[in-house]
Amino acid sequence: MGDFQSKDPNFEVKIKQKLSGQHFMHLVGFDLTEIQAGRIVGEMSLAQKHQQQYGFVHGGVTATILDITMGFAAYTLMPVGKGVVTANISVDYLNPGDGDKIIAIGEVEKPGGKMVFTTGKVFTEKDGVRKQIASARAVMAVIDNSDT
Amino acid sequence: MGDFQSKDPNFEVKIKQKLSGQHFMHLVGFDLTEIQAGRIVGEMSLAQKHQQQYGFVHGGVTATILDITMGFAAYTLMPVGKGVVTANISVDYLNPGDGDKIIAIGEVEKPGGKMVFTTGKVFTEKDGVRKQIASARAVMAVIDNSDT
Amino acid sequence: MGDFQSKDPNFEVKIKQKLSGQHFMHLVGFDLTEIQAGRIVGEMSLAQKHQQQYGFVHGGVTATILDITMGFAAYTLMPVGKGVVTANISVDYLNPGDGDKIIAIGEVEKPGGKMVFTTGKVFTEKDGVRKQIASARAVMAVIDNSDT
Amino acid sequence: MGDFQSKDPNFEVKIKQKLSGQHFMHLVGFDLTEIQAGRIVGEMSLAQKHQQQYGFVHGGVTATILDITMGFAAYTLMPVGKGVVTANISVDYLNPGDGDKIIAIGEVEKPGGKMVFTTGKVFTEKDGVRKQIASARAVMAVIDNSDT
Repeated sequence: MGDFQSKDPNFEVKIKQKLSGQHFMHLVGFDLTEIQAGRIVGEMSLAQKHQQQYGFVHGGVTATILDITMGFAAYTLMPVGKGVVTANISVDYLNPGDGDKIIAIGEVEKPGGKMVFTTGKVFTEKDGVRKQIASARAVMAVIDNSDT
Repeated sequence: MGDFQSKDPNFEVKIKQKLSGQHFMHLVGFDLTEIQAGRIVGEMSLAQKHQQQYGFVHGGVTATILDITMGFAAYTLMPVGKGVVTANISVDYLNPGDGDKIIAIGEVEKPGGKMVFTTGKVFTEKDGVRKQIASARAVMAVIDNSDT
Repeated sequence: MGDFQSKDPNFEVKIKQKLSGQHFMHLVGFDLTEIQAGRIVGEMSLAQKHQQQYGFVHGGVTATILDITMGFAAYTLMPVGKGVVTANISVDYLNPGDGDKIIAIGEVEKPGGKMVFTTGKVFTEKDGVRKQIASARAVMAVIDNSDT
Repeated sequence: MGDFQSKDPNFEVKIKQKLSGQHFMHLVGFDLTEIQAGRIVGEMSLAQKHQQQYGFVHGGVTATILDITMGFAAYTLMPVGKGVVTANISVDYLNPGDGDKIIAIGEVEKPGGKMVFTTGKVFTEKDGVRKQIASARAVMAVIDNSDT
């Protein structure tokens, strides 16, 4: 992984432009910290708003930041004029999440002209100790996208 | 589906109590409209905050309201002292979502003492016309839960 | 479901022709009993060769007959010159399977020009009593297929 | 991965005993080549019987050898008296498979007392060149198992 070549040298700029329209990402408070060809990392501080009734990170938060990082990881490999949408995402919740910070990593496993297979991981960090809380796979569908 | 018998006659009250601690659900703006043994329905009005960069409902919103309705559907069948957490959720995104309203339905397919298998559907409504945008399956793990 | 219109009136003949090349299906002993637009049913008698070490139907048997029925269900809706391959299949094993007979039903949930979303169910029958042992979802990718 | 400690020093012997009852595995022709705590590898020569109608490895073959290696990988970490059954398996088909040989690797990602999360990969080998054709995840459920 991580040995991919983007078909659009401008991919980092394009992703940064798209982030302004990612309204739900802003509501959640997530931000990208690393944008490479085939690999996206993001993180945010954890707050009460991210919790479910037992005080742990809500599964919807985890799924959301996986969808974002895996989707953008696929997007880094798209040629001009193409975009991606999630066809299927499958998330395994390995551990309950809590702590100060949450980190998501999305990576391309297998690019393609019609579909891109991606993997994702989510970690929480508490007092400097990182714990993996989820693993995921997603099939991203390639779409025509005139605004790119 | 829908032919299940709850093991705790108090399940509706217990779920309503839990909702106050569902902080992420409140951030998203989702609310439950139907609480039955083995079946949960919820909905919310769609706003800009729910969108991704193309103006459609964010995949994270869809995954979140599926996780909530499927998880609570499983919870309706738990005996006193037991709760559920999501082990795996798999979401297929059938159509892009837009409109005035979004509705999620979570149902138990197969209850069990260790795991509960559930299914979910999400619809958007635009000018009174309903369109299915996602289908999902989740494996819920039964946990001991002293606060129930 | 089941309200689909095939784009190739010849779909039943084409599927029957393809069956001769389904070598693994023949090894397993599975056969199709119903071929409709958007819906395929098949079955076989259960024998020792289908078992795992506890005497129940092997998970691989269940996955195989789901893949076959869901794949052909998608194929019934393909226009001339198009085929399908499985991109993702996700199987939930609801109950251990045993009995005299095993039945699989594959159905299209949402057709499309690039991807077809399908669902599947598997039942075993013992002394005339039918029990559902698995539920599945699959994303089928549409491919160009000159031999159709 | 691969850093797991088995709770039963006898696990390799127990797995070899179980293989004799894996009738479907024998029908397919698959065999285990590596049995470690948390990791199982197996392989077989490819023959016509493993093919679907386009001459590639049948998706059911791939799902079967994933289920076997991931299930036994989880089993290596079980204490005496416990076994595992597959609750959910999700397989992504990355490439069509062909060649002389097929290899499956199943590994434990996260063990647990009720559920074990596993990952799997399948490769085909043609003229000495190895190609990955599938990636998978499975949730294995821990069961009481008096015969172990």
